[in-house]
Amino acid sequence: MTVHSAFIGIAHYAYNQLLHPDPEVRDVAEAWLKPAYRFAANAGTQRVGGPLGAIASRRDCREAESIPEADYQDLIVRMHRLAEAAKAEGIIELFVEPTPMRREWPWTVAQAVKMAEDVADAAVPWTFCVDWGHGTFEPLYGRYRAGMADWFETLGQKIGVIHFQQTDFQYDRHWDFTEPGRIDPQAAAALQRANGVEAPVFLEVLYPYERDDASVLDAVKRTTSLLKSVFA
Amino acid sequence: MTVHSAFIGIAHYAYNQLLHPDPEVRDVAEAWLKPAYRFAANAGTQRVGGPLGAIASRRDCREAESIPEADYQDLIVRMHRLAEAAKAEGIIELFVEPTPMRREWPWTVAQAVKMAEDVADAAVPWTFCVDWGHGTFEPLYGRYRAGMADWFETLGQKIGVIHFQQTDFQYDRHWDFTEPGRIDPQAAAALQRANGVEAPVFLEVLYPYERDDASVLDAVKRTTSLLKSVFA
Repeated sequence: MTVHSAFIGIAHYAYNQLLHPDPEVRDVAEAWLKPAYRFAANAGTQRVGGPLGAIASRRDCREAESIPEADYQDLIVRMHRLAEAAKAEGIIELFVEPTPMRREWPWTVAQAVKMAEDVADAAVPWTFCVDWGHGTFEPLYGRYRAGMADWFETLGQKIGVIHFQQTDFQYDRHWDFTEPGRIDPQAAAALQRANGVEAPVFLEVLYPYERDDASVLDAVKRTTSLLKSVFA
Repeated sequence: MTVHSAFIGIAHYAYNQLLHPDPEVRDVAEAWLKPAYRFAANAGTQRVGGPLGAIASRRDCREAESIPEADYQDLIVRMHRLAEAAKAEGIIELFVEPTPMRREWPWTVAQAVKMAEDVADAAVPWTFCVDWGHGTFEPLYGRYRAGMADWFETLGQKIGVIHFQQTDFQYDRHWDFTEPGRIDPQAAAALQRANGVEAPVFLEVLYPYERDDASVLDAVKRTTSLLKSVFA
């Protein structure tokens, strides 16, 4: 009997070839987004977005704290072009969703503020999609700093949409609210109100593939019922 | 503030349109597998496979215990044709990976035995890929019946490959062996030896996307080192 880990090795190898963002890959992504904006507009969706920049770790898997300045400036130029393209298709707002990892950008409140300033004159507003499982991720931000208060207080009206979930702050769990966790929905809604953030709240929950469908339906119903009363 | 769950609703709706396996979707899948076999053979891989049959739950999310007989017979006919196609491309063995859910087929030892009999005369052998996180999944199989012993004892030489992972038997976790869990690697290797199963063991571990790359590399190294000594 032998143990193989070839799948893992190959995936890591391919991933780490990309030591810096590749301009041609960025070109492909930028070109892909334009028909995506058209599709969204045709489907009646005027606001779109998602996670933004990806930075590969080094070949020894170490992750840089910061994106290289030239790559950041290239990203800002592309965000301006994307806003023009989105406006031409009828999109009225674009979102950036910060994720809790150094391999994506921006991942801190300060980086998000800088980016907001650098795209303030874009053809359509770039705002942020904050997620209750991202800002609270303790392994990255540290137990004393992790939390959503800084995001709400600092970004304020720059928050365009909110993703909501239950989590233990140890991973980006995307649990529903039938699971025990560290987020108190009442306190979450109160924090949002206290900061005057009017953005809509989306429940974003994920389930293991092997879970029975009926139990998922039941859990979603119970969670939605709870949250509708909390955020009413 | 309002709470939206439109994403979930749309996904569930689309999924549940397919109340029975659609012959045209099966045609597409069968046609897709032939060039996949060619690709594998050209890449030097002579044995390929994966999970097999998918059965949608009902629109109220209830899942049937069994695949309809006509759909099962159609599946067996297609497995014979696939074995012919695989042989023509130079593939010498095909795997079926049972998964712990009623929405896929086969998911019990008895179903696997029946399927093995029904494809025994195929152009290349159809064998099984068993997974330590599938057969042990208590929510489906029940706490008193979940376990790998039945799979090893009953399928024996019909097992062509083994997926190995750490798990708590509550979900198909795909943890590595730096995580606490209910699988004892020594006992797992002993069970395999006691049943004379010579199939290779693949470590199949998955990590949350937000986990730091260096910590993943370290965990894989420690796990591989442990398992190499256990399965030596």
